[in-house]
Parts: sequence; structure tokens; C-alpha cells
Amino acid sequence: MTTANTHWVLTLVCKDQPGIVHAISGAIVAANGNITESSQFTSDDTGRFFMRLQIESAVPREHFVNQILPVAERYGMTWELDEVGRRMKTLVLVSKSAHCLNDMLFRQRAGQLPVELPVVFGNHPDLQSLAEFYGVPFEVHPITGEADKLAFENMLRDYIKTAGIELIVLARYMQILSEEFCKEFEGKIINIHHSFLPGFKGANPYAQAHARGVKLIGATAHFVTADLDEGPIIEQNVVRVEHSDSKKRLVSIGQDVESKTLTQAVRWFAERRVLLDGERTIIFS
Amino acid sequence: MTTANTHWVLTLVCKDQPGIVHAISGAIVAANGNITESSQFTSDDTGRFFMRLQIESAVPREHFVNQILPVAERYGMTWELDEVGRRMKTLVLVSKSAHCLNDMLFRQRAGQLPVELPVVFGNHPDLQSLAEFYGVPFEVHPITGEADKLAFENMLRDYIKTAGIELIVLARYMQILSEEFCKEFEGKIINIHHSFLPGFKGANPYAQAHARGVKLIGATAHFVTADLDEGPIIEQNVVRVEHSDSKKRLVSIGQDVESKTLTQAVRWFAERRVLLDGERTIIFS
Amino acid sequence: MTTANTHWVLTLVCKDQPGIVHAISGAIVAANGNITESSQFTSDDTGRFFMRLQIESAVPREHFVNQILPVAERYGMTWELDEVGRRMKTLVLVSKSAHCLNDMLFRQRAGQLPVELPVVFGNHPDLQSLAEFYGVPFEVHPITGEADKLAFENMLRDYIKTAGIELIVLARYMQILSEEFCKEFEGKIINIHHSFLPGFKGANPYAQAHARGVKLIGATAHFVTADLDEGPIIEQNVVRVEHSDSKKRLVSIGQDVESKTLTQAVRWFAERRVLLDGERTIIFS
Amino acid sequence: MTTANTHWVLTLVCKDQPGIVHAISGAIVAANGNITESSQFTSDDTGRFFMRLQIESAVPREHFVNQILPVAERYGMTWELDEVGRRMKTLVLVSKSAHCLNDMLFRQRAGQLPVELPVVFGNHPDLQSLAEFYGVPFEVHPITGEADKLAFENMLRDYIKTAGIELIVLARYMQILSEEFCKEFEGKIINIHHSFLPGFKGANPYAQAHARGVKLIGATAHFVTADLDEGPIIEQNVVRVEHSDSKKRLVSIGQDVESKTLTQAVRWFAERRVLLDGERTIIFS
Repeated sequence: MTTANTHWVLTLVCKDQPGIVHAISGAIVAANGNITESSQFTSDDTGRFFMRLQIESAVPREHFVNQILPVAERYGMTWELDEVGRRMKTLVLVSKSAHCLNDMLFRQRAGQLPVELPVVFGNHPDLQSLAEFYGVPFEVHPITGEADKLAFENMLRDYIKTAGIELIVLARYMQILSEEFCKEFEGKIINIHHSFLPGFKGANPYAQAHARGVKLIGATAHFVTADLDEGPIIEQNVVRVEHSDSKKRLVSIGQDVESKTLTQAVRWFAERRVLLDGERTIIFS
Repeated sequence: MTTANTHWVLTLVCKDQPGIVHAISGAIVAANGNITESSQFTSDDTGRFFMRLQIESAVPREHFVNQILPVAERYGMTWELDEVGRRMKTLVLVSKSAHCLNDMLFRQRAGQLPVELPVVFGNHPDLQSLAEFYGVPFEVHPITGEADKLAFENMLRDYIKTAGIELIVLARYMQILSEEFCKEFEGKIINIHHSFLPGFKGANPYAQAHARGVKLIGATAHFVTADLDEGPIIEQNVVRVEHSDSKKRLVSIGQDVESKTLTQAVRWFAERRVLLDGERTIIFS
Repeated sequence: MTTANTHWVLTLVCKDQPGIVHAISGAIVAANGNITESSQFTSDDTGRFFMRLQIESAVPREHFVNQILPVAERYGMTWELDEVGRRMKTLVLVSKSAHCLNDMLFRQRAGQLPVELPVVFGNHPDLQSLAEFYGVPFEVHPITGEADKLAFENMLRDYIKTAGIELIVLARYMQILSEEFCKEFEGKIINIHHSFLPGFKGANPYAQAHARGVKLIGATAHFVTADLDEGPIIEQNVVRVEHSDSKKRLVSIGQDVESKTLTQAVRWFAERRVLLDGERTIIFS
Repeated sequence: MTTANTHWVLTLVCKDQPGIVHAISGAIVAANGNITESSQFTSDDTGRFFMRLQIESAVPREHFVNQILPVAERYGMTWELDEVGRRMKTLVLVSKSAHCLNDMLFRQRAGQLPVELPVVFGNHPDLQSLAEFYGVPFEVHPITGEADKLAFENMLRDYIKTAGIELIVLARYMQILSEEFCKEFEGKIINIHHSFLPGFKGANPYAQAHARGVKLIGATAHFVTADLDEGPIIEQNVVRVEHSDSKKRLVSIGQDVESKTLTQAVRWFAERRVLLDGERTIIFS
């Protein structure tokens, strides 16, 4: 190994078939790479093979890619090669609730969340000072009707392209994105649902949880699809509650679970640990 | 205090109003009682007041009751006085799955579950030897049609009355009890639902959980009402699962959660820690 | 009940003896109070009786106190009467780590932590902008020797008295307070220990945890006594770790547990839910 | 692939070096094997590489071994090849407490724990009927002095050899095995420690936990070494307790954690998911 060692993360998906690991590890050997982390999974449901590798190698990216390309072609692989620790360009949409945004901002500054936030968009101005305290520009885009929403989504499309946004996070963003937008960015939008899924849907799940007297409340981070609250689940957490917890206290408890769950999902995504297998996610944590 | 001290548990429910605690504690003082444990709760939803007390006292039961009666009348209380640690007469219904029954039998023998099981009824013979190993008689009551079910329920009614059964536990009993039976014994039948409620309903929740790719699976112990899977929740637990867990493994993981959750609910009920507040339960744990 | 209803929290401790509840509830009835929350505990270890009550009442404080005083005298009670929700004056000491301070500041602003922070003192300037973003003045008090420490503690004593500080929180404050200071404010200083107690003591517990290959790491919030890391425990949490988690990742995971645990302990203290029973704490959560 | 497909589990350990995965996957391809599960880890502490693979292959064992041998030799690997699901021959030692033995017996019968128990040895007769209910012979070996212990250990040595015992489980066995015995079977003996390690050591940790007022109690399954309670940790769990939990209740709560933790450790070992890395364990769960 020579001087300028780079740490790569390689993810790949293809139809399950014998010899994949041998072929891909051959390409890595040929690139003088050393595998430092490896996870794989074969889905019985879809017959697909999933792999995530971390590789230390001193060769330039093109050289590495040249070794992978023929293998990927032979096995019909979808694949991506990235640098470990690169901060993924992430666009965060918010409304008024601060807890999820605060958690993400704090952790990315603390070096625990490999994302770069070029901007935060809010349909209300409430979280402007919080974003700016962490040095992130904040833009208010109020939405009061369908026309606003279409204009906002068109602006978003432009911005995503121009700024090279790789991930969109709905951090308690209380607007519903259009079906077209959700489809266009499928697998790139993560939402935090303030309930354990399957669970209470629609408005005010904490009131429903209280009425039903549940003993645990939870939150679910999931990919957004056109079917509201039904995209592939990335992470879930629950916390115990008691009969004496008021609706207000449930909301407060719930917010902790929400921010923890969303940040975890974003971290996994940014580290390329989340792969899609139909309606399910593979998490190589 | 004299020699033969008894440890009592007193539970009471009434409309919330000033002076309840003072009145009831006055009755206890008059009976030379000492409060060793006390829990109370006022429900904002129903305006009802709930209390559970443990009291050491050397006076005979009648004497104690004589002190409580006028207070209970004045405040319109529903109340019960029992001995701490008395084993509650419990009827367990099972089918083929052993895990819940095994957990209950093991714990009642170990002195951790204050129930007395005069018999176990199964619609299959599979669990006979397990029950008998713990010295509990087992009766097989196969059910192959509506006629069988009605006859079985009539027999149950007789048995419950004759044997003085105070609690009926459905320990993975795969038959649905009739609406009439459920109504007749409302608040006396505990079921274990092999899912986190609200959640996957109907058959095979573990297959549904797998298909949906959930990251946590759970179980819910609840009172049985005429509305299947919808009675007041007593206890819930979840456990983390991964994309690589097969359906078979989910079932195995789920069984642990089921037996733990059911036994906990039965223990609380037998210790008179579960009170009903409309659709919710108050748990004085 | 008249117009200006106040919500009181009453805590009391005395030798266990019959009639306490009746006597205190009598005082509450005489003050036209209505008990909305009540917890009690009798310690087998020390024979002491602990009680915490929340009471709604429209009478002025003096009137209330006049009812309680003779009861308190008769039973030899130590007691305190406060208003529910009053923000407790809290002094936070920090060094360089932001996670605990950030969590406390965020939650007190969100209305989830009833404390008022008149100032934050740090022995380093690193957290100045964070405190000031939340509108809390920050003072740097560097400590490089014993003389600095004594001067600082003397200044603290003055400040605590002048400002009416009720609680001191060591939010990852890396200086050791003197034995005298700890004794003087016993039961008023809460520290977060970055390990599960009993556990790894001394420096760098995460490195020790890694070396030992533990499967769970934790944090402990405890009262500070002259005996370092050995005061009564208020709250503990753990989180699962894996063989593949690096020391750096353990630190990051541990910080979440630390801030969550410390904030919980502070919340309980500020709500007067923490009572001391010798070396143990009673938590009326 | 032909008819008689076998599912193999291959574990291997060697010095970390480039090309390992390519070489071993080449051997698998040459044996017409298909990798269905794969985990690997490189230890920064010891510089060793650990791998566990599950492989479906129709070739006979010798053929498979012939492919692996030259690779293993080239890279200096320690390795084992076993059949997935084969029941590992396990010897259980007990005293009087039933909870751990009951859990293991129940689960191995339920098909959730791939062990075969040819016998259970107890130094007391208390658990004889439990073992025999599950069809496992039970032998009483009372130990009242050093001579007894030596004789018992010599008998054990013979039995382990004759019966082909692969794992020894101390399921709350209250005797201390000799240093020689522990060394001889290092990495083959699993003990359940009734405390969270590092934690309360020596006798009666639950009483210590109570005295110290901890808010969580736990259990640790670990390999037995000559240094009592200090072998590599395999699994740990904790559960929340409260100030009102008596010592008796702590014991009962603790027993649940103990049996769950021990059974989990035994399952991982029997599935060859536990590898040793100095003082730490690698768990490929």
C-alpha cells in the first residue's frame, strides 16, 4: 500500500447467483484494496443479493471503477462507490417543531452525522434562528394553497438539481408533498412519522394513543412514497408510557423518540447502510 | 397492633370529589390499620377517582368492612377488599402452543405469580403432559363446530360458578369465544394478542410484520370484549428485529414477548393492580 | 372552589407510624384542597415514611401552611410546599462537552424542563455561544490550580446565596469540587457519571468498556457526595453496543445516554420527585 | 446444484491481510457452494480477521474440506466447518435454581435452541424431575469438600471425552470449578453471572443492588476463566427496577434476565456465532 489511502464504501444489488462474492472480492484484490467491513444479505422474498463493503485502497477512483465495471456488468449489478465519511448533501424541510432539526444540527456539528446542510426550508419562520445559530441558511416558503405548493415543488426540483441534493429529510414538515414529487424522488425522501407503524394514522396519533390507553408509544422513520405513511420503514423506536401520562406529556415523550429515530435513519442513509428490497429496507448497521 | 396481622389490599373507584383520601384513611385508622402501599389516580377523561391501598391490620375482616362500608356509601364507591398474596382462582384455556402456559406454570410454582390453577382446558391434547408435570389437571374439549362451542361455553359457565373462578386467561387459545360469553365475563378475561396493538390484526401478524419490514415486533395483553382484539390494553412489550430475521425466527422471538407480556398482565390482575377506566386500564404497578 | 386555584406540590418525610395519611389529608381537606396526585413509600431499610402530593387549592399559601404545621409537628415531619411548575433556579457548570448542556437548554425552552438558568459557568469558553443562543449568560472561570478552585468555590457560595440557587448541575464538568463544598451542598448537586454504576470508575470508562468487551454501556445521574462517584443514584440508562463499535462510536453513543439521563434526573428533582433515603433515592415518577 | 444440498457454517480466524475474502470465496465457488450468510470483522486491538459464513452446497464434506485446506494453510487460518442446525452436545451443571435450566429445556424442545443435552448434573437433587420431564437423564453429584470436587471434575473429564461434549453450561451452578479445569476447557464453559459486569461481585449482588439503590439490574453470560467472574463477556441484559422493589422482587426480576441472557449466549455459541478476540468476544448475531 502506498501513501494516499482512501476509505471507500461500495454498495451493490443484483439477482442472487453463485460466485458474486468471489468476483467482487477479486476486483478489490486487483485494486490493491483491503476489505475492512462487509455485510451481505440474500432476500428470500425477492431473490436479490445485497452487499455493502468498506475498502481501504490507495489507487485512484478510476482505477477502482475499472476493476468493478466488468464484474458489475457480468452479474447485472446496480452499484455505487463513495468515500467513507463524505458528508451527504441533505435538504431539510421543517414547519414549527424544533426537536428533530435541533437533533440533526447538533449532531452534524458534533461530527456524529455525516451530512452537509446547505439550507433549511420552512413553511414557517419559527426555526430560522436555530438553523442560523448552526450556520445554516434558512428560507421561509409559506404554503397556503395548491398554487403555492406547486411553485414550491418546482423551486425544490431546481434547487435539488443545482445544489446536488442527495437526500431530502422531512423533519416534522407538516405539508404533504404531491404524488408526482414523491414518485420523482422515491428512495431519496425520509419522513418521521409520529407513531409506531402500523399504528395510529392520520392526525394526532398521541391523542389516539391516549384514548386507546397504549402502554408504549413510538415513532417510525420511513421512505416517502405516494402512499402516505406507507413507505418502506427504516427505523422504529418505542418508549414506555403510563396511564398517568397526560396527552401533553405523551407529546413530549414522543418528541424524544421522533428525533432519535429520524437522526438514526438519516445517519444510516448517509453512510449508505440503507438498501431497498421491494417494500422492505435492508439495514447494514 | 395485636398478634394476627393480616395484609389487606383495598381497591376502590368513585366519582372524583374532595375528601376521599381523608375519609378512607379515617376508616383505616379506625380499624387500626397501617397503610404500607398506596396509589391513586384521577382520570381527566372520565372524572373518576381510582385508589389501591395495601394495609396491615390485626382486626378481623368484618370489623374492617364495617369501617369501610359507610365511607363507601357516602362517596358512591365500588370497592373490593382482599388479602395480599391470596392466590386468585384462574382458569387457563390453551390450544397447541406451549410457551405462555409454560411460563405461567413455572412462575406460579416458583412463587412469583399468585394464581391457583384448578384446571387447564385445551381444545387439543398437546399440552396435557406439561400441565400435569406441574400438578394441574388437564381436560381436552375439542371444538369442531358451533354446537361444540356453545356446549363448551355452557360447561365453562357452570365450571366458573362451581369452582369460583375469578379470572380466565386465553393463553394462545385459538378459538373465538361468543359475543355473549365475552360480555358476560367482561373485565375477567385476559387475552394475549401476538402483535403490537394498534397493529397487524387478523391472522398471521408475524408474516405481515415481515412483509412490511418492521424493525420491532410486539405483543399486547388485553381484556377481551365482544369486539375482537379491541379490549382495554393491560400490557405491551416490543423487541427489536432485523431484516435478516426469517418469518420462523420472528415467531420464536415473538413467543418470548407474548409469554412475558401475558404473565405480567396476569400477575398485575391477580395482585389487583388493574382497574378499568372506560376503554383504558389504570395499572398501579 | 373559588377563582384563583393554585396547584401545589407537598413533599414530606417522617418516621413511619399509623395515621399519617389521615392526618395530612385532614389538613388538606381543611384547606379546601383536592389531591390530584399522590405517592408514598415506607422504607424497610430506614423505617421512614415518604410522601409526595399534588393538591389543587384556592386558599392562600399561609392558610395552607397553617393547616399543615400542627400535623407536621405532631408527626415530626420534614416537609416542603412548592408550586407545581415553578421553575427551579439551577446553576449549571460545564467544561467543553456540549451534549448535556444542549439537551437541558433545548428542553427548558421547549417547556419540558421546569428550571430557570440564570447563568452557566464554564472552566473553558467553548460553550459560550450555545448558552447565549438560548439567552443564558455564560461566565468563564478557568481553573488551573488549587488556588483557582478555592476562589471559584468561594465565588460559587456567594452566587448561590445571592441568586437563590436551588440546584447545581455538573453537566460534564471536568473539575472535582472540594470535599467541603460537596458536604455543604449535599443533596443539591447532581452529576452525570459517564458509566453504569457500579461500573468502570476513574478516567475514560468508554476505553475500559471497549477493552472489556461489554455489550451494554450506560450512564448514571447521582447526587454528589464527598465520596467521588458514590453518591445516591437518581437515574440510570444503558444502550446496546457491538463488538464492531469503535471507541469513538462508544463515546458518541454514550453521550446520548448521558444527556438523556441527566436531563431526566434534573426534571425529577425540579418537580420534587426525588427524596433521599440514606444512600438510596426514592423516585416518585 | 444437485439433490442433497447441505447447509454449512464455516468460521475462520487469522491475521488480517489482503485477499482473504477472495481466496475463501474462491474455495467456496470451487465447491459449488452458495454463500447465504456472511459476517466479518477486523479487530483493531489484535489485528486479527474473523469470518463466519453459511454456505449451501451439494458436494460431500471431504470435497469441501479439500478446497478450504490449502487456503487455510496459506493464510494461517484457524477454522471449523459444521452443519447449520446440528445440535451441539451440551452438558449442563445446576444446583437448586430452576429458572435457567427450565428456559433451556423448554427452548430446545421447542426447536429454538440447537443443543442436545445428554445429561444434566446437579450437586443437589432438586431439579431432577424437571430434567426428566423433558426426557433428559439427571445425575446427582453432591459436593461437600475438596475431595468431592476433584473426584467430580475427574469424572467430568472422562464424561466430556466419552460423550463428545462440546459445551459446558453453568446454569446457576453454585460450585466453583478448579483453576485447572477452567484452563483445560477455556472457551468451552459458559456461566451466567447474576449481575451486570462490571458490577457487584461476590455473594448476593441483588442485596448489594438494593442497598446501593440502583435503577437497573442485569445479568452477564460470559466464558469461564481461572479468574472468577472475569472471562470474556458474551451477552448482557438489564431491566429497570424501582425504589419500591423489595430484595425478593429484585431476585425474581433478576431471574428472568438471567435465563434470557444465558439462553441467548448458548444459542449463539451453538450456532457458532461467538468467536474469541483476546479478552473480548466477537458476536456474529
